[in-house]
Amino acid sequence: MKQRLIVLKIGGKVVDDIAAVSELLKDFSLIPGKKILVHGGGKSATLLAEKLGIEATMIEGRRITDAAMLEVAVMVYAGLVNKRLVSLLQSNHVNAIGLCGADLDVIRAHKRPVKTIDYGFAGDIDEVNSEEIGRLLENRIVPVMAPITHDGAGQLLNTNADTIASTVARAMSSLYKVELVYCFEKAGVLRDPEDENTLISEIDPNSYIHYKEEEIVSGGMLPKLDNAFAALEKGVFKVRICNRHAIANLGSGEAGGTVLHL
Amino acid sequence: MKQRLIVLKIGGKVVDDIAAVSELLKDFSLIPGKKILVHGGGKSATLLAEKLGIEATMIEGRRITDAAMLEVAVMVYAGLVNKRLVSLLQSNHVNAIGLCGADLDVIRAHKRPVKTIDYGFAGDIDEVNSEEIGRLLENRIVPVMAPITHDGAGQLLNTNADTIASTVARAMSSLYKVELVYCFEKAGVLRDPEDENTLISEIDPNSYIHYKEEEIVSGGMLPKLDNAFAALEKGVFKVRICNRHAIANLGSGEAGGTVLHL
Repeated sequence: MKQRLIVLKIGGKVVDDIAAVSELLKDFSLIPGKKILVHGGGKSATLLAEKLGIEATMIEGRRITDAAMLEVAVMVYAGLVNKRLVSLLQSNHVNAIGLCGADLDVIRAHKRPVKTIDYGFAGDIDEVNSEEIGRLLENRIVPVMAPITHDGAGQLLNTNADTIASTVARAMSSLYKVELVYCFEKAGVLRDPEDENTLISEIDPNSYIHYKEEEIVSGGMLPKLDNAFAALEKGVFKVRICNRHAIANLGSGEAGGTVLHL
Repeated sequence: MKQRLIVLKIGGKVVDDIAAVSELLKDFSLIPGKKILVHGGGKSATLLAEKLGIEATMIEGRRITDAAMLEVAVMVYAGLVNKRLVSLLQSNHVNAIGLCGADLDVIRAHKRPVKTIDYGFAGDIDEVNSEEIGRLLENRIVPVMAPITHDGAGQLLNTNADTIASTVARAMSSLYKVELVYCFEKAGVLRDPEDENTLISEIDPNSYIHYKEEEIVSGGMLPKLDNAFAALEKGVFKVRICNRHAIANLGSGEAGGTVLHL
């Protein structure tokens, strides 16, 4: 039987709030077994870009990455945020290692081809090196993955952190029984984004079509759910969308939030 | 018999010049056997700090690291510079991994105690995890080490890259026959810093005392040489100070530059 592996993606306000992230990492540290942390950069990259006078352009929830913005993304995601998370995990006795896609060649990508929109240095993933990641996990190492990939020819690329999480979860499903967990500031997928009491506890592909048609889910939630269902179709065992208070109960498998299944 | 290990430290103008660093990494890639790359940040950290309106203060060649400057150092050293080097090495078929001291807990340090000067978040090294680094080397992985350490309690610290290189070289001497190579923009230690024809090809502890008294070596070269001799006394086999054109010949052991020995 395959061993369980938790792939936890944290982003949004969770990453920006140092006190919140410290609490979350304590809970994450106590989850037994194999685990991977994937992080976004919160608002830090946008803030740094603003301070440097670099304008951030967004299309369909994705940042357009010109050369200057790529430098900012690498500095903030693979540098500041990644190393902060690694040092906090180490302080919780977790043998963490920070990785971008170039480290150990763990995520190979290509620059997104220009059709109607030039996304700049945005990387679409070609391959996840599940063997190298698996070797780390077998040595009780916890990979902390930043949303930066590379093309194998010396070019770093910016890749959406949700996509990293789902693609890594899919790739690792050949070796482990993977639970992919998206942790953000809300309790899960909500019918009314302003009301935590409207949590949708389960979504399957049919109800997802319905929620999209009714525009009950929209905006930034759409790519997250698309990624999640793609992951389930490619062998991921379970996807959960929750807030940081759910992390402490991930070990028991009764963590709440919204669970997606086929 | 111990295997050879090259610990190459690059810094100064070498790191800032992308064309130069690409050439250097090609040569580095072709050196057979075990190797570690340690890098500084060149002028990038100072430039970024300036753009952000953070003033850099230097005392005895060391930057005073306040909280804002630490963030800049982590972003530039552990982020931008480190990941650029790793992706370029990968493009040269070297299985590189970027590490700061927090990753795998490879370098533990403590915040430098305040005596007369408060160096801020400057880290003095307590311990190098030679076992973890050795495990990477035995898996044909090339560590690329940024000059950022941690205290084990969640605090990142800024540590001089030359010190990282010599301390890592010392620690790895228990497992390997280590050659520590400082690569910078000059051909080696020069009697006249403006004249490459005044290279001093060898220095031993006695001649070092003489060169210091005569002020033939001074300024930023002093901590480099102090580190080098400390490393030799603690078991490092050889220290070489050279420029990037020497790297191609490191494999043969006849690379030129200034060689230090006891």
